[in-house]
Amino acid sequence: MVNVAILGFGTVGSGVAEVLCGHESSIARKADGLIRLKYILDVRDFPDSPFKDCFVKDFTVIENDPEVDIVVETIGGAGVALDFTRRALEAGKSVVTSNKELVAAHGYELTRLAQEKGVCYLFEASVGGGIPIIRPLSQCLAANEILEIYGILNGTTNYILTRMIRAGLSFEAALAEAQEKGYAERDPSADVDGHDACRKICILAAIAFGRHIYPEQVPTEGIRGISLADVDYAESAGKKIKLLGRAIRLDDGRVCAYVAPHLVDQSDPLAGVEDVFNAITVRGDAIGDVMFYGRGAGKLPTASAVVADVMDVARNLGHRKALLWDEGGQDAAGGVAEFKSRWYVRAAATADELKHALGGKLPAGRGTGDGEAACLTDEAMTRAELDRRLAGLEPLSVIRVLD
Amino acid sequence: MVNVAILGFGTVGSGVAEVLCGHESSIARKADGLIRLKYILDVRDFPDSPFKDCFVKDFTVIENDPEVDIVVETIGGAGVALDFTRRALEAGKSVVTSNKELVAAHGYELTRLAQEKGVCYLFEASVGGGIPIIRPLSQCLAANEILEIYGILNGTTNYILTRMIRAGLSFEAALAEAQEKGYAERDPSADVDGHDACRKICILAAIAFGRHIYPEQVPTEGIRGISLADVDYAESAGKKIKLLGRAIRLDDGRVCAYVAPHLVDQSDPLAGVEDVFNAITVRGDAIGDVMFYGRGAGKLPTASAVVADVMDVARNLGHRKALLWDEGGQDAAGGVAEFKSRWYVRAAATADELKHALGGKLPAGRGTGDGEAACLTDEAMTRAELDRRLAGLEPLSVIRVLD
Repeated sequence: MVNVAILGFGTVGSGVAEVLCGHESSIARKADGLIRLKYILDVRDFPDSPFKDCFVKDFTVIENDPEVDIVVETIGGAGVALDFTRRALEAGKSVVTSNKELVAAHGYELTRLAQEKGVCYLFEASVGGGIPIIRPLSQCLAANEILEIYGILNGTTNYILTRMIRAGLSFEAALAEAQEKGYAERDPSADVDGHDACRKICILAAIAFGRHIYPEQVPTEGIRGISLADVDYAESAGKKIKLLGRAIRLDDGRVCAYVAPHLVDQSDPLAGVEDVFNAITVRGDAIGDVMFYGRGAGKLPTASAVVADVMDVARNLGHRKALLWDEGGQDAAGGVAEFKSRWYVRAAATADELKHALGGKLPAGRGTGDGEAACLTDEAMTRAELDRRLAGLEPLSVIRVLD
Repeated sequence: MVNVAILGFGTVGSGVAEVLCGHESSIARKADGLIRLKYILDVRDFPDSPFKDCFVKDFTVIENDPEVDIVVETIGGAGVALDFTRRALEAGKSVVTSNKELVAAHGYELTRLAQEKGVCYLFEASVGGGIPIIRPLSQCLAANEILEIYGILNGTTNYILTRMIRAGLSFEAALAEAQEKGYAERDPSADVDGHDACRKICILAAIAFGRHIYPEQVPTEGIRGISLADVDYAESAGKKIKLLGRAIRLDDGRVCAYVAPHLVDQSDPLAGVEDVFNAITVRGDAIGDVMFYGRGAGKLPTASAVVADVMDVARNLGHRKALLWDEGGQDAAGGVAEFKSRWYVRAAATADELKHALGGKLPAGRGTGDGEAACLTDEAMTRAELDRRLAGLEPLSVIRVLD
């Protein structure tokens, strides 16, 4: 029998308890033995919980109990979660988490520590919620050199953009709706400013390219600047606006990683990913493009990914090989400023002025009567080159095109 | 060092040799040690091959060489491939394959034999080519009860249907084009009659539901009967025709598995899967729907999945847990006749006659001037019930609707 302790009885933590106990017998069959929930650590009291006998308030109880094999960390953040994760690993317990912030900031250190101690640090649920991506990327696609990985990594912003596109809501109205539905937090900045997507692309990049990429190395832009005019122009050009995290392997070995809105062609499978769904595309030299699609968040989807990691550890106790990558550093990431793409520009200018500056083609659907025009460049260029060409004009919106 | 022997130097086998040797150093790094291609078994001579020193014509050389740890079987079929696979496993060697026919027919026996011998029988490449699906389904989604699994499992038929939909080609013309491009065999029946998709859904069902399902238990219908009229009617109803393999867990424990064309709504992510691409949707009780998308065939995509399995075996030599399911049997599969769905019917009748019989709504786009009409039923019903209602009418085409 394998004993599990859950740290934090929030949305994901309580989902893990539910899935572990609700599927006990089928999980035992698949994991070659019973997995027992022994402790739940939370500062709060849950006298009516079906798991009420499991609660403890002191982490040392878990840390010092040699029966605990696996610690599930669903506290979130990089404060106490980091401390408990380190201590659990030091105590020879495997740790499974959905905490993207912690993995993005300290994944290198924590995976090494796990390896030293002969245990595991697994985090399938940290990217894409329940969508399988970490294991497929590290195992199934292992025979590929990964060239690029990109995707819709944040469900909240995808919901907001979908409502802007489908219902013509303004960003503010769509955000308010997302908050009402519980898809967005009261303080939505982690989502709408792209920080959540940034952490996820860091984790994916580390696995795909083998070196730690830190969030502060990843230029990150959210969707606050997207207007309905941009949505309409994009539509008339046969494109949809999506917030993407991207990581591209450069020839010099660096990883060019960034988060920003993009105009995505309607024919791209990512364009059809709507509402709170996520999708991640991996481009490998042998496989070409593969895409993984599903619910990127939510209690049970995320919990099911955590429990799958728990089962993997339980099945392979003492044998499972660590998922490792190399240390990060200044030379690991960069090149976003030199990264060329086509651009969408909306500016307070006439169509002729814009066309003259950029030599591109104008989306057909909207007139220029309201003192602005929009254009897609024909050529791929750096942002600096774009700005040079736009000199003297007043851009209202500048968005990369995904080609 | 781990030594590999490839059986069969055809498309996939030669791709495996290329990927293994082309990525030698990165594979060695990820697999914790060098993987050496020691033998290639083929009856033909390849004097100009860069691998010419590896060729042998006698399987016993491989069978009796204790240095060979992993045998890659890319012969195909269930004849000599079955014999060699058994003998390799008996000799204590792990076997990796892309051979869906063999896994669908003998997977139960071969996985058990592998377990007995303490080795592995892996077949990620047998479904979806390079798309990761076997490992995600068996590991990442392990905490879910799988409710249903369905998908576009055959690239050739999807290409043909895409060309019928997009270019208005007849089935015959689209098939001829697919043959010209090398997507379809000279004898296309394994693809167009659904047998290839049938084998794949058997494998997926075994992993998802835990019992072996044999191809002969799976009613299988291909796409020869699809006409351009059906494509047009479907389009006017906002649907696309796709050949799907489906496996649904019934309440009585049986698996309802079949292969047939379906009308898929445009809003379903499967509707956007075009050309030779494959996509597989898994519905779990916790995760909801997840979809896996990519190239379902082709030399390098398929080879990359085979090599990933080889790396997995090499990394976990002696430790990797077997992927197992239970024996099949008459009670394992069934229920297709009782399985209700909405239906599309085209018949030599007036719209009124058809509407009267079925009470459904008519796709808007086409008239009935040419002596036929089409209808989607509003209600889900069994095929028998549909036939009862159609008594006296002459159906030209009957296709399930995916809801």
